[in-house]
Amino acid sequence: MTVPAENGVPKVGPSVRMGSGVEFDLIRRLLGPPTDLGPAVVVGPGDDAAVVDLRRAVLSTDLTIEGVHFRRTWLTFAEAASRAVVAAASDLAAMAASPVAILVSLAVAPDQSDTVGELGEGIRSAARLLGVPLVGGDLTASPGPVVINVTVLGETEAPVTRSGATPGDEIWVTGVLGGSAGAVSAWREGSEPDAELREAFVVPKARIEEARWLVERGGVRAMIDLSDGLVGDAGHLAAASGVRIVLDPQAVPVHPGLTKKHASRLAMFGGEDYELCIVGEAGVFQPIVGSFKERFGAELTRVGYVEEGDGVHARTDEGLTRIVAGGFDHFASSSSC
Amino acid sequence: MTVPAENGVPKVGPSVRMGSGVEFDLIRRLLGPPTDLGPAVVVGPGDDAAVVDLRRAVLSTDLTIEGVHFRRTWLTFAEAASRAVVAAASDLAAMAASPVAILVSLAVAPDQSDTVGELGEGIRSAARLLGVPLVGGDLTASPGPVVINVTVLGETEAPVTRSGATPGDEIWVTGVLGGSAGAVSAWREGSEPDAELREAFVVPKARIEEARWLVERGGVRAMIDLSDGLVGDAGHLAAASGVRIVLDPQAVPVHPGLTKKHASRLAMFGGEDYELCIVGEAGVFQPIVGSFKERFGAELTRVGYVEEGDGVHARTDEGLTRIVAGGFDHFASSSSC
Repeated sequence: MTVPAENGVPKVGPSVRMGSGVEFDLIRRLLGPPTDLGPAVVVGPGDDAAVVDLRRAVLSTDLTIEGVHFRRTWLTFAEAASRAVVAAASDLAAMAASPVAILVSLAVAPDQSDTVGELGEGIRSAARLLGVPLVGGDLTASPGPVVINVTVLGETEAPVTRSGATPGDEIWVTGVLGGSAGAVSAWREGSEPDAELREAFVVPKARIEEARWLVERGGVRAMIDLSDGLVGDAGHLAAASGVRIVLDPQAVPVHPGLTKKHASRLAMFGGEDYELCIVGEAGVFQPIVGSFKERFGAELTRVGYVEEGDGVHARTDEGLTRIVAGGFDHFASSSSC
Repeated sequence: MTVPAENGVPKVGPSVRMGSGVEFDLIRRLLGPPTDLGPAVVVGPGDDAAVVDLRRAVLSTDLTIEGVHFRRTWLTFAEAASRAVVAAASDLAAMAASPVAILVSLAVAPDQSDTVGELGEGIRSAARLLGVPLVGGDLTASPGPVVINVTVLGETEAPVTRSGATPGDEIWVTGVLGGSAGAVSAWREGSEPDAELREAFVVPKARIEEARWLVERGGVRAMIDLSDGLVGDAGHLAAASGVRIVLDPQAVPVHPGLTKKHASRLAMFGGEDYELCIVGEAGVFQPIVGSFKERFGAELTRVGYVEEGDGVHARTDEGLTRIVAGGFDHFASSSSC
């Protein structure tokens, strides 16, 4: 059912333009050539719903809107769509779950059907990298901005939540932080970010295997992916676990592409790096830093610890300072609920 | 991460406005008071992803956009949100699956935080009616229109797809058709639809129990929910099953609130009634029409049959006529892919 719009959306009711078949071509383009759906998918795309065999389903959904989460002058639509899939998959990494299938809802202005092809390309490329099939979705007209909603279905035997942190535990992060925020910062100042900062924003990595590997080593108490920034997400961990998290700003691994001036601030508060923040039993992770780097080509860095209390604090030369700000304003950005 | 916008979205980067906590209040309002998550939900809202124990997961996702699928002068935000949940759940009905949990992504303009409360009210009310918990979601700023994406997770032992129709089968529909399109038609002409037509559009019913009851009776070969209109959705069934569907326009049950002039056309082509279109083995359904009506207060009506061939045809006084048009233009409205 369609409300008439200025921009060429066909009218509904007795005078509706009848089935042009446009959508089916678009959906076919979105899906691309048939791919192997894997053993878990019982019914794939093309029916009212997808059917997947699972024991313990893990689900997350993530909304990306043009003009809010990205601008089309910053990245291609294929890149925006691919990034949206990775961002959704990252929530599964944070639960130590493996993605099994994705569903994508798209809204595109009626006069931009080429955009559907580009978005589909990005979605399929991200799905291929994750090794999961696209099992369903929805395609609709947009009154303006491109809208991408990605739902990722995964599976886990032993989910890792945000609520397992206990006093004495250590706080660790994967990779380097602030790169994504550094790129946005450059764009906002009207310049083009360095290639490696741009890459941090445009092609983040969902740390799926890293999360599972760490959990297999043992000692993981709680985990979150860094979408709202280290301080913001540490705040979520602290709140969910009923503990205080103390961060050492000097220890936080800063993206090497950041200029010194804002580096620490961006690494502490910048969102959407999609690295993992792991709460680990004391002493468990230090011995595996080397093998983690060897295996995944990324750092594993201790950035703080857990103690009794609440909120997020910074250890500075003057002692502990409560970081009152919780990171970005999430309502204006985005966050799982 | 937030792109600055004209409409008050906070800026990102070093000058970002730090965690106002606004989002958390909004999410709390969206979720409402804690509800019983049921035995299947292992991890509910508040973590990176939801975890649900299931054997065979059924998943569908559905995108609703203000100005495309509804106007705020037609219905309240609570009604729009509730309708979006029902529309998504209807896809599960069409698979003969039972909903287990829902995830909702919302985008609302930053200056309309009251809208989040209204949307949350509608979502919770629909979830209550369906008897399922809201286990996750995403909340983000919109550059303008309200965006609602609903993902419904369900479970089934024996999914009913679109592809089981064989020559000799009968085509049946639940309820009466065209009411939803009749309401939109009235609004478009600048008048207020009759209460019963408005209700057809605003508070459709997902025929979850009806679908399962029919499947338990035996003889259901294929099924679809009527979102694209009878002709459009019969076309989906025909294409998926590799058969021809012949409809009898005289037999199609017309919503009693429709004026005679357009009634048959709206009932044949009008979308979003969310009734079921069932392909049944010949002779199986006629004997249970009475008990269906007694149990569910709705008609069960034979509207056609399946034969060899392709496409959707109408049986008229002049014989068979192929209905070339497939219903609405789905790209401009919405459809599962």
